[in-house]
Order: sequence, then C-alpha cells, then structure tokens
Amino acid sequence: MPKSFKETSKHKGLSPGTVVYIGEEKTAEVKISVIDYNKNEFTKREGVKEEECFPFKEKDSITWINVDGIHNTDIIEKLGKCFDLHPLVMEDIGNTTQRPKVEDFGDYIFVVLKMLYFDERGEEIEVEQVSLVLGKNFVISFQEKEGDVFDPVRDRIEKGKGRIRKMGSDYLLYSLIDAVVDNYFSVLEKMGDRIEELEEDIVERTEPESLHNIHKSKKDMILIRRSVWPLRELVNSLAREKTSLISANVIIYFRNVYDHTIQVIDTVENFRDMLSGLHDTFLSSLSNKMNEIMKVLTMFASIFIPLTFIAGIYGMNFKFMPELNWRWGYFSVWGVIITLGVSMLFYFKRKKWL
Amino acid sequence: MPKSFKETSKHKGLSPGTVVYIGEEKTAEVKISVIDYNKNEFTKREGVKEEECFPFKEKDSITWINVDGIHNTDIIEKLGKCFDLHPLVMEDIGNTTQRPKVEDFGDYIFVVLKMLYFDERGEEIEVEQVSLVLGKNFVISFQEKEGDVFDPVRDRIEKGKGRIRKMGSDYLLYSLIDAVVDNYFSVLEKMGDRIEELEEDIVERTEPESLHNIHKSKKDMILIRRSVWPLRELVNSLAREKTSLISANVIIYFRNVYDHTIQVIDTVENFRDMLSGLHDTFLSSLSNKMNEIMKVLTMFASIFIPLTFIAGIYGMNFKFMPELNWRWGYFSVWGVIITLGVSMLFYFKRKKWL
Amino acid sequence: MPKSFKETSKHKGLSPGTVVYIGEEKTAEVKISVIDYNKNEFTKREGVKEEECFPFKEKDSITWINVDGIHNTDIIEKLGKCFDLHPLVMEDIGNTTQRPKVEDFGDYIFVVLKMLYFDERGEEIEVEQVSLVLGKNFVISFQEKEGDVFDPVRDRIEKGKGRIRKMGSDYLLYSLIDAVVDNYFSVLEKMGDRIEELEEDIVERTEPESLHNIHKSKKDMILIRRSVWPLRELVNSLAREKTSLISANVIIYFRNVYDHTIQVIDTVENFRDMLSGLHDTFLSSLSNKMNEIMKVLTMFASIFIPLTFIAGIYGMNFKFMPELNWRWGYFSVWGVIITLGVSMLFYFKRKKWL
Amino acid sequence: MPKSFKETSKHKGLSPGTVVYIGEEKTAEVKISVIDYNKNEFTKREGVKEEECFPFKEKDSITWINVDGIHNTDIIEKLGKCFDLHPLVMEDIGNTTQRPKVEDFGDYIFVVLKMLYFDERGEEIEVEQVSLVLGKNFVISFQEKEGDVFDPVRDRIEKGKGRIRKMGSDYLLYSLIDAVVDNYFSVLEKMGDRIEELEEDIVERTEPESLHNIHKSKKDMILIRRSVWPLRELVNSLAREKTSLISANVIIYFRNVYDHTIQVIDTVENFRDMLSGLHDTFLSSLSNKMNEIMKVLTMFASIFIPLTFIAGIYGMNFKFMPELNWRWGYFSVWGVIITLGVSMLFYFKRKKWL
Amino acid sequence: MPKSFKETSKHKGLSPGTVVYIGEEKTAEVKISVIDYNKNEFTKREGVKEEECFPFKEKDSITWINVDGIHNTDIIEKLGKCFDLHPLVMEDIGNTTQRPKVEDFGDYIFVVLKMLYFDERGEEIEVEQVSLVLGKNFVISFQEKEGDVFDPVRDRIEKGKGRIRKMGSDYLLYSLIDAVVDNYFSVLEKMGDRIEELEEDIVERTEPESLHNIHKSKKDMILIRRSVWPLRELVNSLAREKTSLISANVIIYFRNVYDHTIQVIDTVENFRDMLSGLHDTFLSSLSNKMNEIMKVLTMFASIFIPLTFIAGIYGMNFKFMPELNWRWGYFSVWGVIITLGVSMLFYFKRKKWL
Repeated sequence: MPKSFKETSKHKGLSPGTVVYIGEEKTAEVKISVIDYNKNEFTKREGVKEEECFPFKEKDSITWINVDGIHNTDIIEKLGKCFDLHPLVMEDIGNTTQRPKVEDFGDYIFVVLKMLYFDERGEEIEVEQVSLVLGKNFVISFQEKEGDVFDPVRDRIEKGKGRIRKMGSDYLLYSLIDAVVDNYFSVLEKMGDRIEELEEDIVERTEPESLHNIHKSKKDMILIRRSVWPLRELVNSLAREKTSLISANVIIYFRNVYDHTIQVIDTVENFRDMLSGLHDTFLSSLSNKMNEIMKVLTMFASIFIPLTFIAGIYGMNFKFMPELNWRWGYFSVWGVIITLGVSMLFYFKRKKWL
Repeated sequence: MPKSFKETSKHKGLSPGTVVYIGEEKTAEVKISVIDYNKNEFTKREGVKEEECFPFKEKDSITWINVDGIHNTDIIEKLGKCFDLHPLVMEDIGNTTQRPKVEDFGDYIFVVLKMLYFDERGEEIEVEQVSLVLGKNFVISFQEKEGDVFDPVRDRIEKGKGRIRKMGSDYLLYSLIDAVVDNYFSVLEKMGDRIEELEEDIVERTEPESLHNIHKSKKDMILIRRSVWPLRELVNSLAREKTSLISANVIIYFRNVYDHTIQVIDTVENFRDMLSGLHDTFLSSLSNKMNEIMKVLTMFASIFIPLTFIAGIYGMNFKFMPELNWRWGYFSVWGVIITLGVSMLFYFKRKKWL
Repeated sequence: MPKSFKETSKHKGLSPGTVVYIGEEKTAEVKISVIDYNKNEFTKREGVKEEECFPFKEKDSITWINVDGIHNTDIIEKLGKCFDLHPLVMEDIGNTTQRPKVEDFGDYIFVVLKMLYFDERGEEIEVEQVSLVLGKNFVISFQEKEGDVFDPVRDRIEKGKGRIRKMGSDYLLYSLIDAVVDNYFSVLEKMGDRIEELEEDIVERTEPESLHNIHKSKKDMILIRRSVWPLRELVNSLAREKTSLISANVIIYFRNVYDHTIQVIDTVENFRDMLSGLHDTFLSSLSNKMNEIMKVLTMFASIFIPLTFIAGIYGMNFKFMPELNWRWGYFSVWGVIITLGVSMLFYFKRKKWL
Repeated sequence: MPKSFKETSKHKGLSPGTVVYIGEEKTAEVKISVIDYNKNEFTKREGVKEEECFPFKEKDSITWINVDGIHNTDIIEKLGKCFDLHPLVMEDIGNTTQRPKVEDFGDYIFVVLKMLYFDERGEEIEVEQVSLVLGKNFVISFQEKEGDVFDPVRDRIEKGKGRIRKMGSDYLLYSLIDAVVDNYFSVLEKMGDRIEELEEDIVERTEPESLHNIHKSKKDMILIRRSVWPLRELVNSLAREKTSLISANVIIYFRNVYDHTIQVIDTVENFRDMLSGLHDTFLSSLSNKMNEIMKVLTMFASIFIPLTFIAGIYGMNFKFMPELNWRWGYFSVWGVIITLGVSMLFYFKRKKWL
Repeated sequence: MPKSFKETSKHKGLSPGTVVYIGEEKTAEVKISVIDYNKNEFTKREGVKEEECFPFKEKDSITWINVDGIHNTDIIEKLGKCFDLHPLVMEDIGNTTQRPKVEDFGDYIFVVLKMLYFDERGEEIEVEQVSLVLGKNFVISFQEKEGDVFDPVRDRIEKGKGRIRKMGSDYLLYSLIDAVVDNYFSVLEKMGDRIEELEEDIVERTEPESLHNIHKSKKDMILIRRSVWPLRELVNSLAREKTSLISANVIIYFRNVYDHTIQVIDTVENFRDMLSGLHDTFLSSLSNKMNEIMKVLTMFASIFIPLTFIAGIYGMNFKFMPELNWRWGYFSVWGVIITLGVSMLFYFKRKKWL
C-alpha cells in the first residue's frame, strides 16, 4: 500500500481550505532556515521563528525560506497568510498525499514534488513530499523532515559557485527541482543494482524468494512511477510557462531538467519492462525445472517398474513354473533385466532426457 | 455483472424523453429536503412536497433541493417542468444506468455522478447514481436513496463553517461533487486493505480461495473504474467551462477536485496493476508449489522404486540362485540398499531438491 | 470468421460504383413499405413498388421508405437514381461487408450501421447491415431482411406518441439510429448473462467445455466490438455535423445517442476485461486442480512405496535372514509399517496437503 | 525475417540519390507496356523501349506506363530523368525495402505500396513493392515482377467499362491503388480460412504442429500488418491532399479506398486478436490435457500401489505369520483388496476424475 | 543494466553547466580532424590542436571538425567557447548518458544521437554517443572513440561523389545523421539473424539456454529501442524546423532520413513482437514436452503397476491358495497379464498417447 494513500480519508468532510496535516505522526520540532543572498551578499540563519521570515517578503535580495516539518499547521498558516497564499495552497502543503503538480497563481507559482529515498537499511523506498512556492524575490520550500538533498544547492549559494548568486529566484527554483530529479537517479541506480542481482539469482536458481523479490521490486516501481510520471508534465509546463516569474534565460535550464525527467521516466519504464521480463523468465525456468524433475521421475519409474514386474513374476508361488527349475533361469532373468534396462537408457538418451 | 447495466433494456422502445425509473425496485417514500441560505440567513425543511419547491426558483438566496429516491417519476417530472429542465434530462435522472457526464444547457448545468459504497457487510460494492442540476440560484440533487455522504456539506452550511455561506450555488455544486469524490477515497482505502490482506495471504499459502478473492477484487476494480474514469473529463470540463454559471473564483476549487479525481484514478490504476501483479505471483507460487510436490514424489519414487526392485530380485523362487545360499547374502543386499539410498539422497541434495 | 468478411473478394475486379449484392444468398422477395406523415396526417403502405416511391421525393411531408432485402440490386439502383444517390453509395448499400460510417453528400447524408441479433436458438450472434439515407424530407432505410427493431418507431409515428410527428426527417433518422443502439443493449444483456453463467461454471468445475465457451464468447465480443466501435465516431460526427439537414434542436438527441453508444462501448470493454479475467481464473484453477491431483498421487506414492519396499525385503528368499525366524518379526514389521505410515500422514498434514 | 528487411544494409555508405536495386536477384528482362487513352481513343503497346515513353510526357491523353521489373536501374534512371523525378524518388523506386508512403513533389505525386501474394503452394506470403508516379497526364507504375493484379484495370480501360475512360490520370491512380487494396482482401480471406482450420484443429487435438502453425500465422500477420498499417495514413492523405493533381470529384473515390483500407486494418487486428486467443486456448487445452493425463496416472497409482503393498505383506517369509495358515486368509485378502479398490473408484468418481 | 544509466549519479550535486565527462574511463588521446571544402577545394587535416580549429569559424567554406574522444573536457570547453556554445550544451556533450534530442539555439543547432555497435565478438551491443553542432558554415561532431561509421561521408567529400561538395553544412549534417541511421540497419540485421536462429532452435529443442538467449535478445531490444525511439521525433523536428540553418532543398533529405527512421522503429517493434511470440512459443513447447514426458510416465506406470500387483498376489505365502496348485495356473496368469497389457496399450493408442 502506498503510504501516501492510506491516510487520505482523514481529510474527509472537512471544509476545503482547512489546513490539516495528513501524514505519519511526527513530534520532531519544525525547523525554519532562511538564506538571503544577492550577487555580493550572503546571510544564512537557522532555527528562525516564522515571524522573522515576514520582512523578507519585500526585500530585493533573493530569499530562500526552508521549512523542515509540516506537521505544525500553525506555521504553514502564518507563513501562508504573510505571503498571501491561497487557502487551498496551504491545505495542499499540509497534505502529504498530493500528486506532483504545478499551479500558477499569478503572483506566485506553487509546485508539489515527491522525493524518493531508500530507508537506512536500503530496502524500503520512502516518499517525502516537497512543496515549493516561487515568488518574485523568494522561494519557500516545505519538506516533511530534515534531509540533505538540498545541501549541494545551499553549498553553491554559500560558496558562490556557478551562476546561482547572479540569477533570480526562478533559477533557485530550478536548482531545487534539479536537486530532486538528480536524487531520482541514485534511487534508480540502486533499483538497477537490485534488478541485476535478481537477474543473476534467477539464472542460477529459482527460489520462491526470487519470486517474492520480483514482486517487491515491481511494487516499488509502481511507487516510483507514481511519483515520476506527473513530474514530466509539471516540468514541461514550467519550461513553457508564459509567466513573468520565470525569465527567458532560465527557461533553457528548465528544458534541461525536462530532459532529465524524460530520462528518469525512460529508465523507470525500462526497469518495468525488465522486471516483467524477469518474471516471465522466472516462470519459464520454473517450467524448465519441472520438466527436469519430471524427466528424472519418469526415467526411474519407467526403467524400474517393468523390471520389478519381471522380478514379481518369478516371485510367484505356483507349483508348476517350468522356468524356476531351469538351471539358467535366474541368470537369464538377469540377462533380460539388464538388456531391458540398458535399452531403456538408450531410448531416453535418444530422447535427450539424459 | 454491473447492476447498472442489467436493467437498461427495460427502456427499449420507449419514446425519447419519457421519464421512466430504471433501477432496483424500491418502495421507500421519496423524501425532499430544502435548504435555503445566504450570508446571513439559513432555513432547512425536510419532507416537503415538490410543489413547495417551486417558489425557490425565483428567490435570490441559494437553494439546495435534495431529492432522496427517484423511483417516483412524477416528482421528477413536476420538478423538471417547474425548473424548465429538458425532457432528456428528466429521462436521465430517472435512469440509474447513466454514465457520469456533464451537460451545459445554458440556463442550467446537468451533472450525473456515481457514488460508491460498501454494503453493510463491507463486502460488496454498491453504486448509486447522483444527479445534480446547477441553476443560477439553486442546486437540485437527486439520490437513489437516503445517504449520509452530503451530511458534512449540510453541516457546513448550517453552522456557517468555511466559505460556503458566502459563496453562490456554483460553490455548493463544487462542495457536493467534492463530497462524492472524497467518498471514493474511503472506498479505495478499503480496497487497499483488502489487497494488502490478499498479498499476505498469497505469500503464506496458495489456497483456491485466494484466487477467488483476487478475481472478485479485479471485478470490483472494473466497477470502480467504470464510475471514476468518466469523472475526470467531467470535472475537467467544469474547471474549464466557459459558462456564466460558474464564477472565476470557484474555478480554482474545481481544479482542486480535478486533482483529487486524478489521484483517485491514479490509485485505481495502481490497484489494478497490483492485482494483476498478485495474480501473476499467485500463479507463480502455484507453479512453485507444484515443483515442491513433484520433488517430494520424485525423491520418494526414485529412491524406493530401485530398492524395491532389488528386494524383488531376491524374492524370486528360482531353484538355482547362488546368492540366496550365501551366508552374507542378506546383509550384503542391505549394504547395497543402504549405499544406493544414501547416494541417491546425496544426489538430490546436490541438485538442491532437499 | 466474421461472415461479413468472407465474401468481400467477390467484388474484386469490378468497376467502382457497380452495384452488386455481397452477402448471404437470399431468395425472399424484397418488400418496400412507405410511411408518410406530418403533424396532422399519416399514411402507411406496405408492399409498394419502387416506382411508387418516386413522388415522395418532392412532397413536403416526412416520408420514410423502408426496403427489406437488398439482394435485388435493381431496386437499389432505381431508387438511387430517383433520389440522386452517388453510385458509390448504391454500391455500399448492396455490399453487406461495410464498416459503420457516415458520409455527408450535401443534399443527403448516408449512414451505414450494423444491427446485432441472437439467432433463434440464442447462441450465435448475427450481424445485419442497415443503410440509412437522410434527405430533406425523407429517410430511406435498407435492411438485409425483415426485422422488428424499427417497430417501436413505426408505432410511435402511427400513434403520434412523443415528439416524432412534430419533428422533421432528422428526428426520424435519430429515432432509427436510437432503435439500433437500444437493440445493442439487449444483445449485451444476453452476453452478460452468459458471462455470469460462465463465471459460476468455472468456480464450480473446470471442464474443457468452459474453456470452449470462454473462447466462443471472446470471439463474439470481437464481432460486437467490430460493429460498435465505429459507431462512436459516426454518432459523434452526426452530433457535431455542420449540415443544414440536421437542425439544432435535434442535435441534442444525437448527443443522447452518443452517450448511449459510449455506454455500449464501455460495457463491451468491461465484458472483454471480464472474459480475459475469466480465462486467467480458468487457467489458475486448472493449475490449482493439478496441484490437488499431484498431492493425492504424491501422498499415496510416498506412503506406500516405502512400505512396499519393507514388505519386499522380507519377501526375499535368502537362507540366512535372522529376522524371519524371530518370533515377533512379523508383528514388529507391522509396527514399523504403521509407525512410518502414520508419521508420513502427519508430515503431509503439517504441509497442508491433507 | 521479413525479406524486405534483410538486404537493406547493401545500401549502406552509398551517396543519397544513387539508384541501386535492393531486392532479390533477378534476371528476367524488364518489360515496359504503355497504355494511352482518352474518352474516344485507346492504344496499348507492350515491350516498348524506355525511350519510346518520353513523347507521352507532353501528350494530352492519359498515359499509363507500366514497368515490370526494377532490377535494371538504368531504365529507372532514364525514365526518371525524362519525367523530372527527384533523385531520391528514383532511389526509392529501386529499393524494395521501402515502407508504404506518399510524397507530394508539386508536379507529381510519388506513392509506394506493398502488394501481398500467397506463393504458388499457397503457404508463404510474398511481398512485392509497387511504386506509382502520378503526373498531370500520366501514371507510371513500377512492379518488381509481372503480375496480374492490374489486369482488371487494363480490361476496364480497354473495354471502356465504367467511368475510367472519361476521367483523368488521378482516377487511374485511384483504380491502381484500389486494385492493390482489393487484393489484400483475398490474402486475408486465405488467412481467415487458415485461422478457422487452426481453430478446429485445436478443439480436436493439441498437436505440437498446431503450435507451430499458430506461430507461423502470427508471423504472417506481423508481415501483413507492416504492409497495411502505413497504407491508412497514405490513402487518408491522398483523400485530403490539397493538390491540383487530384480533382475534387475523384477525392470521393479515394475516401472509398480509405474505407476499404480501414476495413482491411480492422480485419488484420481481429485476426491478430483471434490468433492470440487461439494461442491462449491452445495453452489452456494443453493444461487441460495434462490434467487428464495426471488423473489417469494418479488413479492407477493410487489404487494399485496400496493393493500391491498388501500383496507384498503376505509375500513375506516370516516363520510366524498367523494369517498365512488361516484357512480363509487368502480369500479374506481378496475381499480386502476388492473392497479397497472399489471404494477408491467411488472416491475418484465423487471427485469427478472418472 | 544499460551502461548509459549506471554512471549518471556521478553528476549529482554539481552546478549546472559544469562540463564533466560521464562515461567509461578512457585514456586514449583525443583526436581532432578537420575537413574543409567547397565546390572546388578540399583540405583534410588530422591530429590538429583545438586552437587550430578556431579560424574555421569565420571561413566561408564548409568545415567539418570531428572530435574523437570526449573524456578530455578541456578540449570541449575550449571549442565550445570559441564557437559560442551554451554551457549546458558543453555539459551535454561530455555526458554520455544523454537521450537523443535536438535543440535549436538560433545560431546553431545541437543534436545528440546514439550509435549502436556489436562488440568484436559480435555478442554484446555497445552504445556510443555522437553529438553534432550545426552552424552556418560548420559542423562539429563529437564521438566517444574513433569509429568508421562516418568514413563513407569522408570518402564522398574527398572524392566529390554525389551532391555533398555542392551543398552547405546542413547537407553535411544530414549525411552524418544518415550514416548513423544506416548503421542501425546492420545492427538490426544481426539481431534479425539471431532471432531467426533462436526460432530454429526452439522448434528443434527447448533448452534452458534458448530461454536465456530469448531473455538476452529482449534486453538488447530494450536497449536499441531506447536509442531509436527518440530519434523519430528528433529527425521529424529537423525535417520541419523553421530555421534559417537548414535550407528548403535539404529538408527533403531529412524527410528521407525520417522515412528510414520509421523503418528502423518498425523493425524494432516487429522484432519485439517476434521475440515475445518466441517466448510464448517456447513456453508452449515446454508444456508440450511436459505432456510428452507425462504420457510416457503414465503409460509405463499404468501398464506395469497393475501387472505387478497381479504378480504380487501370487507371491503371497498363504497355505491355502487353490490357484497355486492348479496345473495351468502359471500360464493363465501370463494370459491375464498379456491380455491386460495389450488392452491397455490399445486404450492409450486410442487416446493418441502413442
């Protein structure tokens, strides 16, 4: 069961626009960090209060407000009111069951993404929702919990690497989405390794466990697919958006992310094809193995059952059985048995059962 | 068999526009309730006669007329004539085999939806048709029988929660459609639980019963799909409709329902994928199990049939069988038998059949 | 083999526009009936000659000429020439292998439909071609043989029920198409019953016959699909046609037929899904049954083959077999046998094979 | 392997526009025939030299130049230069691995089609490429070898049957394409017969040979599909082409061919569905048969193995076996054996294995 | 695992526009060759330094700069800066995990293609990325390593064969893409041979190895498909591009490549169909073979188990067994055994098991 689905019904019956946290229960404190920069300046503050973010709304420099944790709906509502977000947007931020989407509200663009992780043991895929709001001079990002996927972006801003300090908030939005998409590649790489292992597994032996693993990987691919497919349309609409918020020279970067997204989808589809191919191969090797087993059984049975019959015949206790008294009877029977056995073996050899 | 299909042929041969009730036979009385409200006022009346609804047509306040029960076609016709509904619309309201659709008649918009329930025992899915008519100041809703899915909306109107009292009839229409879509989530959640159970079932044992359950769930998904897919186009056209009946600031709410609908469809498709994956897995475990069974059979047969043959040989009654008189004959045979048996066991061990 | 396909090659090599009857050989006489009506008047004549139809072309009242039987190509040609039909249209009328289609020739619209019947024994589906020509004041319908599917329409005209007498020839065309589509529902209903029966059949027992029936139903669905799918586009283009022949207030009726067509297609697709689901289930129960059979075999063999071996051992005729002379030998062997047998039974019990 | 594919690589590395013959090696002489006609006149010459065709380019009457054999690239080049064909067109004519397509060069339209035949033994499908060039007053057709598919068209021109003599070169092009499409029907009819035979075959017995035949037919359908599908787009674009070369009153004839093409595609898809249905049914009957076999085995084994065990018991040579000396021992054993055997039979009867 | 995917994650976290080589590690020196030509002149230089290429940017003659090896990112950057390439383009050139695409930057067009090879042993498919930059008077091509696929183009330029010397850089771009597409045909031809071999293999015997080969070929087709499908859109957009860089008379050549691309895709899809058909056939023959094996087993067991039982009966040691003392007892038993055996054989013969 995709986690993201399970808790949707909590929302049922509430008035639209009510901000409710729908997701796993969490108690960790919500952390807000603010990065403010332009070509020349850079300030970074962690653990700020939501009220401290308000002044950045009007500032000319680019501001990136990152909120780790969305289970405290008060914070979402306060920030939302300050930055004039539509009630439905605030509701969507708090609801982790969203489908990736982009919505243009004129003054700001609202983007919902899904981040994918492998859990610590590297076995289960975890999905985390990231909401991004792009305004004229600011980007607000909401994550379910602290993560390190945006660290390279922070690093680039801090060290002034690349173009990021010279560009606007639209380029920051691009950088964040790019970081999320890049992260997919590492998840897919791990999936790829798993599929490769499975493949070797199946060639060597056909354990019920392999079946279980194929089934599990298939389910994981369904989950990944669910997060990745809507991204295509999302990034595409950003790359073609007629909005004053994204400038022409940033569009080309979004087109670049779009290419990456297509590549991700491509890989996902290929993996699905491979997995269903693996399943077919698994089934076929099962049948193959069954054939092997049956051949063994049939050979043993077909050779020894007739021979046992012959022995049975001369085990009968009839008074008058001429062969029994014949001097060479016993040895002749052995002769017959060996001849029969060997010719059966030849027969099976010819049938390629051996 | 989808119930909704079975009775369609009753209609055959009737003149188009004839209002006939097509659905399960019902005897319960038709109940009409009227809720009339604006920002400041609120009246609610239950068990009203159809004639009492007529004055609301011209009233400025928002009126919601809810009809529980459509088997009394007289009421539909009277209401329809009063509110100037097209004969085909009235026919559609009475015919529970409709496919979800939206039709814009200029003065009013006609919407047909399907509501999904689990029956009391929580095993069978039931489908109920809901018809909605949106006029300038009113919404008329027709349900097959009394239900509680609209209760939260009634509650919000009565208590003045959220925006609903401040908005027009278009927002009321949205609220009703939203309530129906929200209800899908709880049905899907139940389906999800069932699939999860099935999954655990199959991992543990492969009973014919599991097969039956997979088949049943697949059929249920066909039914759900049939109700949900047309909804996509329906809500989409409402969210993009160029009609004076739906105001610009309500459009965004319809876009929100649209997102939910996509999410529902997504989940339905995922469940279908999962179910067909389950079926594949079921088949594979059947084959697996068969292999196990065959291994047991083959091992027993392959070990004991040759041994029985050896015993058979020395059970023969030939006069001249030198071994029989040999002092250690019996023990040598035991030696041969044990050697053979053990080496067979090793052979099967090596083949990983043990 | 779809009948409609088999005889197409008869036509090969003929000049286009040559009217040839392509279909099952028939000898029944061609019957022409004419119904002429307007709001106030109504005349109905059966068994008229083709020449008698010509005057109706110019008459202001609505005329419906129905031709039962198209194997007499003379009649088609005469009527066609009188009503200025294109040679290709006449060719199409005579050729029962047409695909449903609509063609707008400016002065008239040409529609080809497929009617579906169950034969008398209710087992085989039969396809009949219906061609309709809509002119300003007339509709000409060509059927392969006499049928009763248009009777309700005739009845409505005669008795003046509904709107039909007040509307033009476009409404008559609609009524005829509606009658054909309504007829699909009863065919589908029968198919639905058959699928339901099959379903019960398979749950109870997995006879080869069920397989045959599934296969047959699948083939029937291919046939139905072939007739129904093109209808969608056909009715849709009529509902959106920019032609002076179909008036704006009749368009809405065509939209209604369109909804029905979608419903028919929906049901057809659902039935196909169900049938392929049934086939899967059938295959799975076969495997299940095989497992059952193998369990029985394996149990019997695994229990008795070792026991027989033990009996075989003491059936050997060695001179020196100490156990044989032991007083309790026989009973001890029974002890061993029973212990072994019972513990095997327990083993299989634990493996859930019992 | 589709033949048409195998030799494509011959072309590799050549300059585009180089006319090379790519196809089976042929030595037959290239034959050119010219038919020149208008409403009143008709001349037909066979075995003409390519140079003799040049004057027809400017003649007002309609000229049809038919070239049987394209392995002599000189002829293609000479004709091409005279009629101003683009080098790529000449290359395409010589290359039999083309996909059906239409290209509009303003002065002329270039059409590539695939003709399908059954070889003499009626077993293998053969594909032949036909290239058509439509100019203002002429049509040039290139065939791989002499064939009779265009004979009816020749006949109609010669005898002045139908409209052909009164129409232009566009109608001639239509007639030729129509002849090719009509030819598909006879190929499909043969395929249909083959599928019907297969169907009967499978119902009666499940030979490995049937499997081979299904596989072969499936491959043939892939081949046919490859030739037929692109035709759809081709004919459609001719029927909608905005070109002065095809006059308005011929367009309707192309629409007619288009309908036939759709019918062909429809049939091809149905046959594919049927074949994959057959394959499923084949597999299912295999499983069914396996079940039958296993039932027989299981019954024999389950009845006689226990009985043999009993016989084995009393074949033991213990000194002290009280039953052996009992007067009715032997008959009692028979009693037990018969009772056991019969009750087993009843058990299997009840399980419906008999 | 597609190689091209595996190393993508190396890129993670880098600033966009950073040129990094992502691909297999390579040490071979990067080789640059320059061909400069017009109608009359031709110069060719190999092993030039990147700086030596700069002057060609402004020259009027057509220049083709070919870079073999992209692991030296310095060279890419220097060339890129000189020819004003966008940083993202340079990044894409160095990243061998690109998906085929075309991007129009106004001044130049950037094309990424995939080249397919069989490795020396002809078993594994290798993918190489080719990047092409089309400017006004130049084409720059980047290959991963030295290859011979462009040799025919070089040859045509050098010897002045065909049109190439008379045309512009757009025709050169066409020639290079054409060379890549032509190369696909030889890869597909080899795949075709492999499939044909597999087909013969399966008809003759059903070895597990065949299964492995089918699986491998399927995976190869996934790889080929991944390279070929995006090409379609790519070439199509070149053939329809409204850009001053591609002149109208070259467009027709791109349309020609487009046709070839469609042909390649067609073949790829057909091969996929064939492979999945092969897999089905393989599975079916496995089942067939299983049936054969089971028949043998069942026959042997069903004939000899009852016979052995009879022999067992008369091997019992009861004191009073009248038959044993009967003179013809032994021969009667033989009679019974032979009768039984023969009638069983007849029974199986009738069941077509022999």
